[in-house]
Amino acid sequence: MGEVESYEVRPIGTVRSSLTRREDAPRQGSEGAPEAWIELRDDFRDGLLGVEPGRELLLLTWLHRSERDVLQVRPHHDPQRTLKGVFVTRSPDRPNPIGLHPVTVLEVDGCRLRVAPLEAIDGTPVLDIKVATRADGRCPEPSR
Amino acid sequence: MGEVESYEVRPIGTVRSSLTRREDAPRQGSEGAPEAWIELRDDFRDGLLGVEPGRELLLLTWLHRSERDVLQVRPHHDPQRTLKGVFVTRSPDRPNPIGLHPVTVLEVDGCRLRVAPLEAIDGTPVLDIKVATRADGRCPEPSR
Repeated sequence: MGEVESYEVRPIGTVRSSLTRREDAPRQGSEGAPEAWIELRDDFRDGLLGVEPGRELLLLTWLHRSERDVLQVRPHHDPQRTLKGVFVTRSPDRPNPIGLHPVTVLEVDGCRLRVAPLEAIDGTPVLDIKVATRADGRCPEPSR
Repeated sequence: MGEVESYEVRPIGTVRSSLTRREDAPRQGSEGAPEAWIELRDDFRDGLLGVEPGRELLLLTWLHRSERDVLQVRPHHDPQRTLKGVFVTRSPDRPNPIGLHPVTVLEVDGCRLRVAPLEAIDGTPVLDIKVATRADGRCPEPSR
C-alpha cells in the first residue's frame, strides 16, 4: 500500500442530548433513542439552507469515546454470539469511529436543529449532515 | 462553542476502480457505477471476519478531491436549480468530505473485497465499513 496518509476532520457542531453516558445510550436510534439538538458552529450556518422540519437526514458524528484499536467484537457484548470483524457490525469501537444516524428534523432554530431519534450522547462532535436518499435513507412509507 | 478540536482519520484501505476521473463518476452508485475492489491494509484484515459475498455493507470514504470550503451548491451544477446548503445534498464538496456508499460484496479475496456498485474513483481512501441496517441500508424489494 505504500503511504500511510491521514486526514483531519473538524467538527461542524455538537450533539446536545439528555443522554450523557455511553452505557445509557441505545445501540441504534430506532431502539428508543430520544430527540436531541444539533448545535452547528456559526461559520457552517450557510450549509443549512433548505433544511426544514420533516426532512430525513443522515448525521455523521465522531464517536469520541470509542476505542480505535478494536477489530473484532461479539455483537451486543454477548459471549454467546460469534466473534465478528468490526466491519460487519455497527460497533462504535473501530479504527475510524464515525457514527451514522438517520434522523428526522423536528425544528430549525438558527444554527440549531432539533432531531429524532438520536442515540449519540451529549457532547458528541458532528462531522457532516447529508440528505438521506432512497439507497441509504429510510424506506419510504408504504402507500396506503 | 468554545474549543475547535479536530480528529485524525487514518484510511483502512483504498478503492481500486476503472473510474479514474471525478468527472466520469456517476453521482450515486445506483446511477450506473461499476464494480470495484477495496484493498484493505493488511493490519485491518481481522476486521473483515464474517464478510461474505452477498452482504450489504456501507463504505465510508474520504473524498480526497473535494473542496472543503463549499457550503452551498446548485444540485447537479444546474443553474436552474435552487441554491441549497450542502447539508441537504450529497455534494462531494463539503467541510468534511466523507462519502457514503451502499454496496454489495461480490467476492472476498484475503484483504480485498470486490463490491458493486461504487461511484468512488480509483485511489479514494476508505475510512470505514459498516453493515447496512434496515434503518439506513437499502430498502427491501417490494413484494410482488
